[in-house]
Amino acid sequence: MSAGLSSGQDAEGILGHRAGEAIAAIAPSLEVIGTAINGENKLLLPGFFNAHSHSSEMWQRGIIPPLPLELWLAQLYDFAPLDLEKVYLSALGTAVETLFSGGTSVVDHLILIPGKELETIATAVRAYKEIGIRAFVSPLIQDESMTAGIPSGETKQNHEAYFRSTQATLELIEEAVRQFHRPDEGMSILVAPTGIQLCSDALFQGCIELSDKYNLCRHSHLLETKAQEKLAQEKYGCSAVEHLGRIGYLGDRTSLAHCIHLTDTDIAILAETKSTVVHNPLSNLRLGSGIAPILKYRQAGVNVSFGCDGASSNDSQDLLEAIKIGSILHNITDFDYQHWITPRQSVEMASLGGAKGLNMADKLGSLTVGKKADLVMYDLTSLSLLPRTDPIGLLILGRPTNAVESVWVNGKQVVANGKVTTINVDDLRQQLYDHSQWDTKRKSQTVAQLEAYYRTVMDLL
Amino acid sequence: MSAGLSSGQDAEGILGHRAGEAIAAIAPSLEVIGTAINGENKLLLPGFFNAHSHSSEMWQRGIIPPLPLELWLAQLYDFAPLDLEKVYLSALGTAVETLFSGGTSVVDHLILIPGKELETIATAVRAYKEIGIRAFVSPLIQDESMTAGIPSGETKQNHEAYFRSTQATLELIEEAVRQFHRPDEGMSILVAPTGIQLCSDALFQGCIELSDKYNLCRHSHLLETKAQEKLAQEKYGCSAVEHLGRIGYLGDRTSLAHCIHLTDTDIAILAETKSTVVHNPLSNLRLGSGIAPILKYRQAGVNVSFGCDGASSNDSQDLLEAIKIGSILHNITDFDYQHWITPRQSVEMASLGGAKGLNMADKLGSLTVGKKADLVMYDLTSLSLLPRTDPIGLLILGRPTNAVESVWVNGKQVVANGKVTTINVDDLRQQLYDHSQWDTKRKSQTVAQLEAYYRTVMDLL
Repeated sequence: MSAGLSSGQDAEGILGHRAGEAIAAIAPSLEVIGTAINGENKLLLPGFFNAHSHSSEMWQRGIIPPLPLELWLAQLYDFAPLDLEKVYLSALGTAVETLFSGGTSVVDHLILIPGKELETIATAVRAYKEIGIRAFVSPLIQDESMTAGIPSGETKQNHEAYFRSTQATLELIEEAVRQFHRPDEGMSILVAPTGIQLCSDALFQGCIELSDKYNLCRHSHLLETKAQEKLAQEKYGCSAVEHLGRIGYLGDRTSLAHCIHLTDTDIAILAETKSTVVHNPLSNLRLGSGIAPILKYRQAGVNVSFGCDGASSNDSQDLLEAIKIGSILHNITDFDYQHWITPRQSVEMASLGGAKGLNMADKLGSLTVGKKADLVMYDLTSLSLLPRTDPIGLLILGRPTNAVESVWVNGKQVVANGKVTTINVDDLRQQLYDHSQWDTKRKSQTVAQLEAYYRTVMDLL
Repeated sequence: MSAGLSSGQDAEGILGHRAGEAIAAIAPSLEVIGTAINGENKLLLPGFFNAHSHSSEMWQRGIIPPLPLELWLAQLYDFAPLDLEKVYLSALGTAVETLFSGGTSVVDHLILIPGKELETIATAVRAYKEIGIRAFVSPLIQDESMTAGIPSGETKQNHEAYFRSTQATLELIEEAVRQFHRPDEGMSILVAPTGIQLCSDALFQGCIELSDKYNLCRHSHLLETKAQEKLAQEKYGCSAVEHLGRIGYLGDRTSLAHCIHLTDTDIAILAETKSTVVHNPLSNLRLGSGIAPILKYRQAGVNVSFGCDGASSNDSQDLLEAIKIGSILHNITDFDYQHWITPRQSVEMASLGGAKGLNMADKLGSLTVGKKADLVMYDLTSLSLLPRTDPIGLLILGRPTNAVESVWVNGKQVVANGKVTTINVDDLRQQLYDHSQWDTKRKSQTVAQLEAYYRTVMDLL
């Protein structure tokens, strides 16, 4: 792709040339090659990263009642979609909402259909390629059964063995890497054990080996709940961060979702290892998990990016909403406003912060000559971005609606005039409609079975 | 207005008749009088209340940097719009965003242009009548100067007298009541001293008298910041709630915005006096004011409704966003999820809770025969409300976008097919554009003057 981009007199923006996949030049005045794009009343920013999601949760958004993670998860898995068509549609839906809220990249911590693991991955890969978003498909793996994720407290628990062996799981991931890992084409596979609560050290070790062998990024949930904090102590006799540090899982291509219940020592370890925190503020509120100490991370030099988390715990995939709430939420945690996140810092966290966490800061995350053209152009005449004030301030602190006018990923335009150009979104809506039904009475068997135990162990009497 | 309303087979909704202003009947099957409205794939709910806003703040949304209330306010007033045309346009803008996010009523704690106080009120009244939203215009009054709102701590401060006398202010409000207070026509005037931080007891007393004489609701800010909590102790030697209770300002037609820094004793007083708390979660985060103890209010039986607060501290007027965040935010304040707010409770707080706080629960706030037809119909085929799950859960927990299909206020349709029918929104956008300019370098003189003093008094050294 090759185009000139002109910006309006007053709007912030760039004049740039994009040749092929990369930004070729940025200057106040350039000769137009190809089609010039009128940037008057527009704001051009680097694409943001939806740095943690689970696409198939879209099928249950809005329906899981207010519950903490462990019980919410039980309900989620009771009704997880088991057909590939649904995986395909929710990957598209996740991508559409991400694109329309400033995102050009999505990290999909993909829930695998048992017995159809590779097909699940292939399906999500196909959806993301079709729509043209940059994707980091991170097959969600574990090797311990669900009940092992709840601390046992005083009780003695025996857990069923997980249905698939650690070795088989690792082979599966290696096969996915061989088939689908093509970072230059905008499709990466990550190693992504779900977290210390459901994974053995052997699984983490195997992932480290794959990561080293194929230069893969590493992803995981980390200390999302108090229950997990408690469990780590039971399991390792130290914090989860210390343990992951010791076994070598942390590093500059490791991104960790949530990171709520960390000590100052843990934070120092994240900083030292150059690990990235993915902040999922809406999910953390929705599940009552807590407020991640984001201002402390920033002060300690830990890289932070934003994620929507899966749509069942958000219950949307609007990245700008996650960025807004994930920025202003922390103003109540530190009385000194000089530490608060400014809108321009939010933009940098959402773009460059996301790129750093995926080890691609040299290729993505800013409007820099030579970097890949992952760009979003906002229409500053959207009612939600008027009156004219500080366009970046209003984009981050307001509630932009119908504001994304154009999106380019890897130099290819995937949204033009506020419409996705690569797939038919009306068809997608119809398919989402056809594959679902309204339900206001749903009950989870597993929640009913687990709840009394959970309340006892967590001292909710 | 007179119409039948039919609902789809699976969607929640009502079949109803609206004759004139009121809901005439609700039944599974009714003879259609007038135009039938197809409710297939729609969700019909009572209109929500944007129970606290300041419309003219729209002119500064997105531009005030992250600052606590007292410094933020200094910047707000440095650049407050002083012309009536802007007051008119921002009232329309506030109304449009409220309507498109489920609101049919707005409480506008209206900032008055000095010297043009009655004209400011007249202008806002005109805008709200034109667009057809139900309005509770609450002229923001005070009789102490801005610096009096910051606690003096150890220092001894003398404050300039306020430019208008208490008596003149009360006369102004009485005149506004005579000219504009027409509750049956959807236009009410409230007495609305800004808060204990800038108002004398004489002003509160005068407002109580006007409220009793004309049966007006009462509104005020209350304990939004730690600084105000400190100031109340300096000023009265007791909490602000105790003081307002003693002087008789509290009661079942009193609504109080923010209510963050209250003790259990204060909460008991609010419950006993049947006062209403208006929760403005986004503003409370944005300004770092804190988390209002909403779950405690609900447990104590205090009525709670939602507000966007002014657009400079939000920075939007999307009521559904305020409801979502104002619901899930509290999950982190109480580990027992059985106390968390469910989506159906959120709907009731936003509708009936709003009506109660304005002493109109007998006329508004629910789908009840005989109540006024303030109704919002959502399009459940909006991408943001798909796939089909629990429509109310997804409306509240998701991020509904382009989801409001129709709105009726007092039986009159003001939104149809997702378009405002009463004003031209494209013209409004053009006007907002024309009356503003982008600015990324703005600095506030008053903040520069106040900041060192604020940091000393608030122990930010």
